[in-house]
Amino acid sequence: MAKQVLILGGGFAGLAAARALQGAPCTVTLVDHNNYHLFQPLLYQVATGELPTEAIATPLRPLLAPTGACFRLGRVLAIDLAAHTVQLAENATLSYDYLIVALGSVTNFFGHADLALHAFDLKGVEVAEQARSRILYAFERAMSCTVASERSAWLTFVVTGGGATGVEFTTALLELIQILMRRRYPKLQNTPPRVVLIQGGSTLLPSFAPSLQAAAAAKIRALHGDILFDTHVTAYDGLTVQSVSAAPLPARTLVWTAGVRAHPLTAALPGADSHSGRVVTDALLRMPDHPEVFVVGDGLAPRHQSPWPQVAPFAIESGRYAATVIRAALLKQPPPPAFIYRDPGSMVVLGRYDAVCQIDRWHIRWRGPGAWLLWIGLNLYRIMGTRNRALTLLDWAADYGNRGNAIEIIRKK
Amino acid sequence: MAKQVLILGGGFAGLAAARALQGAPCTVTLVDHNNYHLFQPLLYQVATGELPTEAIATPLRPLLAPTGACFRLGRVLAIDLAAHTVQLAENATLSYDYLIVALGSVTNFFGHADLALHAFDLKGVEVAEQARSRILYAFERAMSCTVASERSAWLTFVVTGGGATGVEFTTALLELIQILMRRRYPKLQNTPPRVVLIQGGSTLLPSFAPSLQAAAAAKIRALHGDILFDTHVTAYDGLTVQSVSAAPLPARTLVWTAGVRAHPLTAALPGADSHSGRVVTDALLRMPDHPEVFVVGDGLAPRHQSPWPQVAPFAIESGRYAATVIRAALLKQPPPPAFIYRDPGSMVVLGRYDAVCQIDRWHIRWRGPGAWLLWIGLNLYRIMGTRNRALTLLDWAADYGNRGNAIEIIRKK
Repeated sequence: MAKQVLILGGGFAGLAAARALQGAPCTVTLVDHNNYHLFQPLLYQVATGELPTEAIATPLRPLLAPTGACFRLGRVLAIDLAAHTVQLAENATLSYDYLIVALGSVTNFFGHADLALHAFDLKGVEVAEQARSRILYAFERAMSCTVASERSAWLTFVVTGGGATGVEFTTALLELIQILMRRRYPKLQNTPPRVVLIQGGSTLLPSFAPSLQAAAAAKIRALHGDILFDTHVTAYDGLTVQSVSAAPLPARTLVWTAGVRAHPLTAALPGADSHSGRVVTDALLRMPDHPEVFVVGDGLAPRHQSPWPQVAPFAIESGRYAATVIRAALLKQPPPPAFIYRDPGSMVVLGRYDAVCQIDRWHIRWRGPGAWLLWIGLNLYRIMGTRNRALTLLDWAADYGNRGNAIEIIRKK
Repeated sequence: MAKQVLILGGGFAGLAAARALQGAPCTVTLVDHNNYHLFQPLLYQVATGELPTEAIATPLRPLLAPTGACFRLGRVLAIDLAAHTVQLAENATLSYDYLIVALGSVTNFFGHADLALHAFDLKGVEVAEQARSRILYAFERAMSCTVASERSAWLTFVVTGGGATGVEFTTALLELIQILMRRRYPKLQNTPPRVVLIQGGSTLLPSFAPSLQAAAAAKIRALHGDILFDTHVTAYDGLTVQSVSAAPLPARTLVWTAGVRAHPLTAALPGADSHSGRVVTDALLRMPDHPEVFVVGDGLAPRHQSPWPQVAPFAIESGRYAATVIRAALLKQPPPPAFIYRDPGSMVVLGRYDAVCQIDRWHIRWRGPGAWLLWIGLNLYRIMGTRNRALTLLDWAADYGNRGNAIEIIRKK
């Protein structure tokens, strides 16, 4: 009987692994609790009304069909390393000869249950749509508010975390607010909305060069956003944001991008780091004592060198590499050389027509419309499925042609 | 001070009233608990994955802006006819000189709490999206089912109600199933899905000519759907459909289109019919003893003649008429002639390239691709907003060009 390869997770890493196993002498099954692959880097644009969910969520079944891999909709409950099985919530047990753990990361609220309850993270399509509805609802409530302090709380939007997601979301939100104020809510001009980005460190975008960090901060301020550095949010009850070094801030909307940790099932594997939940593997991305189990993507802890980034290119490279190791083993060939990751560079979009871009290999530090165009091109290229790409293009064209349309439907929970 | 006209509801009737009041010497406020106008006749296509929600939901604020009417997002709690005020759930009270009640209808589960809990109606975008997710989820569950009876229950879809919505949804669902079976789930061909339409009466589409009723039934059977006539569903626990004259039917999905009644606030008005909740008005659509209150659209009970249909054209005509009466009163002019409704005819789509059409005025009974093209043209023309129309066109074009793509994203509740 053919060997069974089981992939947990249909994100960038899992999908890359399934694709790289095409034609290998094994049966491949990919399990995900969603029936779609999510283009996570653009999810913040769903939250700011720039993109419909369908443009960045591609059904996994047709994506996998050409690779020969099977898709299984299911929520993983437990991994039994000794028995070589995985248990699903849907009352089923799957066995494997090789296992690729590609479960990604989850939001880290650092134990704050109140934040988990009241804040919006940007980790799934449902919560991104809820965040969009909340932002639009806040404007509607502000329109009918007769108490100034309440109106101001509805129009205060707090973002925590000054990494790529926090900065991209903040600039997109500030631009959405400009559109809404000009086109829908000119009557609110006497009580303008306030966006506050709260960052734990003393700079935005810690992994970028100081000149690009400064450019990001300058852009946010130019769009009338506030930045609070060296501040941590300590509590949020849905009404007031409490933090260590700033006054209590009445705000009805808090978006949390201040931390992730590995998926709980990855964090439960032997040897996982207690803080990050990430797992250290051998040079072939295999678990210690379990050479049949691979950890890839966000769940993979760096070995000797500088921290591996939890980004799509790394997820794709590591997923593809694990597939190469498995293919070699199935064919009884020697394994490939040890995994190395060459950072292709990072880019952070700063709203329409602006971005910062850093490619260390070539000593590139770039900002402005050229960097933005590069970003647009890369993202459009990466969004899979021609129908989705056409929809995205049409939507963006309509968006820019109309000087900014947004999806304005408020959905109920 | 200018007279206040308050419109409750931003459906076809309320929106038509607001538009017809443009330029009248009054201030107009329209209240809705959604911030969008919903093109309800196409909502079933959201449930069958043919259209994205954004294609049929148009934000009310920009729709109303050219009319000069104000939009107020709010849920109406109570109407105080004596005080001339309306109370909102958002802790606000609005007063009026003229009130237009355009609250539409709600699903009538005829007191079955279990049905309200487990069945999907097609009255809002959230439930339509949930129905779509459920249909796709059922196929995924069927794929991994190892027990034949369970698989068959996941693949049994019951629709109650043989009116226009029930027939249109059933044919669209049958065609969706054909696409899914061919393109995504060929492995299920040994346990083909089953669609059962349950109709209380002895024909489908009761208001249509017998030849068109027969055409609808023949179409559903040609697509391998079953029809149970003279049957009422009596109970549903999410697992088994109980009915008066058929054997218990294991089915994990039940879509309910078997009845509506007027919105509870309309039904609570003095003189409302206890069964339908609809209100009989005078010849000018004004409430008895309250000439400043108008009832329009689905909430309006017919006076002497045959039943007024609860459809978009009637809602538009009655909403527009009420506005005319108010405008005449504001200008101290005599009221217009009594309201009469001339039925422009009805059309029911029977899937791709097929429909039935009946226009009594001209003795037209039509079916087939020509009727279908007419229906497409009418619906596209009626969907408001150029961006939405472009999106719809693109989506439909992609749909038919690819011989049937569907939106396949399963959202979590």
